Amino acid sequence: MNVTVIGIGLIGGSMAIDLKKRHFTDHVIGVDSDKLHAETAKNIGLVNEISDLDEGIKKADLIVIATPVDATHKLLPDILDKVTDQTVTDVCSTKHGICELVKNHPKRKNFVASHPMAGTEYSGPWAAISHLFDGKSTIICNKEESSEKALKDTEDLYGTLNMRIIHMEAKAHDVHAAYVSHISHISSFALALTVLEKEKDEKHIFNMAGGGFRSTVRLAKSSSEMWTPIFSQNKTNVIDVIDTYIEKLENFKKGILSGNGSEIKNLIEDANKIKRIV
Amino acid sequence: MNVTVIGIGLIGGSMAIDLKKRHFTDHVIGVDSDKLHAETAKNIGLVNEISDLDEGIKKADLIVIATPVDATHKLLPDILDKVTDQTVTDVCSTKHGICELVKNHPKRKNFVASHPMAGTEYSGPWAAISHLFDGKSTIICNKEESSEKALKDTEDLYGTLNMRIIHMEAKAHDVHAAYVSHISHISSFALALTVLEKEKDEKHIFNMAGGGFRSTVRLAKSSSEMWTPIFSQNKTNVIDVIDTYIEKLENFKKGILSGNGSEIKNLIEDANKIKRIV
Repeated sequence: MNVTVIGIGLIGGSMAIDLKKRHFTDHVIGVDSDKLHAETAKNIGLVNEISDLDEGIKKADLIVIATPVDATHKLLPDILDKVTDQTVTDVCSTKHGICELVKNHPKRKNFVASHPMAGTEYSGPWAAISHLFDGKSTIICNKEESSEKALKDTEDLYGTLNMRIIHMEAKAHDVHAAYVSHISHISSFALALTVLEKEKDEKHIFNMAGGGFRSTVRLAKSSSEMWTPIFSQNKTNVIDVIDTYIEKLENFKKGILSGNGSEIKNLIEDANKIKRIV
Repeated sequence: MNVTVIGIGLIGGSMAIDLKKRHFTDHVIGVDSDKLHAETAKNIGLVNEISDLDEGIKKADLIVIATPVDATHKLLPDILDKVTDQTVTDVCSTKHGICELVKNHPKRKNFVASHPMAGTEYSGPWAAISHLFDGKSTIICNKEESSEKALKDTEDLYGTLNMRIIHMEAKAHDVHAAYVSHISHISSFALALTVLEKEKDEKHIFNMAGGGFRSTVRLAKSSSEMWTPIFSQNKTNVIDVIDTYIEKLENFKKGILSGNGSEIKNLIEDANKIKRIV
């Protein structure tokens, strides 16, 4: 089958690699509004051809929209206007808005709202790698709004990528994504900002950055094009979880100021419970 | 030379492995107040023998105190009382307090205050691994207070561990350690507490934890025995950096609430500057 990937960056490009390698498709068509990204994707062999959007839709059996949330919101209604029986799926980190956006579209059934939970802190076609999705989870939302065929195509795609498929209602997805994924990014962005402000002399950061700092600050390298619209889209949930996060930091502050070691010890031991889960 | 390691956990044990393997010593004596740790260290071959503190001091040419900060504060004056010409070094994450503690001790010159900046989220002799220190930095503080011999012994030890040696004044060390290392741990502990509180159903955490959450929350597995006294010792600097961190989180909150994407975008792009350094 022909797969058209719209947005040939880290996610779209990594999908293209493994979908071809594992014979899910032998022809990937890339569409990207960024000319350099499009050319690079073609040159490094992520896609077989580059085309414009209309041509990409026409030639596809399955369309993956792998652009940032705001671009996906603009593209999806237009793409659904143009499809006949093609399946369309997306990869956005927020799912309620997109499901609301197209819930009355006559082609809603062609669309499967999905969120493969994988990535790195890098972006663009240069960042695409094989095995990015292996063993990770993908969330498919509001599956009853999709046709059986569209659902099967999408589940086959994620099956090929060796992902574990989880079904969830879109609104619940956004709550859980804020709790588990979005707050990690905010905690890491804020950490980078803090250290950059406190350590005017970068040499100290470089010299004293152990593995701990490196892993905690890794997500702060993530792209603003991707994350700005996610935080905007998931505003209420993200604000709620930032509030809880600040509350926990205030508890640490209180414990440290009190000079009572047992308060800090209890907080750390409660935090250690995360070991049981991840 | 005989090396006595007091506290045969992640740090002491990992040192013992590479110091023997690289022929810095062919006899490591382990001292540990935890009987199970001591026995394990002997059984898995981290040390050649286990002894009590007095015997360990007597037999040593070089003594490494690799216990948590509070235990090191208790042990060091007692150990300095008992040494003749042995070199003593420690590995604590806070250095001002320990330097103050022994600054007038008649054997102060035998002591080198050091902080090898390496570790993992695991602890105990079972966590000890080879190559833990390779390529990382170690900070030696107030070197003018140590004798040339003690300094040479300690620098040879860290040289054998393939560490980059950096000299710093103890008070400055504690400020930088708060900025780069201690705040990472607090941000990670608070993240674990937040997610555990918000996600009462652990299955969602497990299902939705991508690589990003895992790397950001990794340090939250660190031991309370080690970290409680560090935060207490470095109280003023740690509180100061928590305040800045909360301020950055409030900025994110403000940006998200404003609905003005460009505010969030600017924050993320400023955070991205960490790429230039780590």
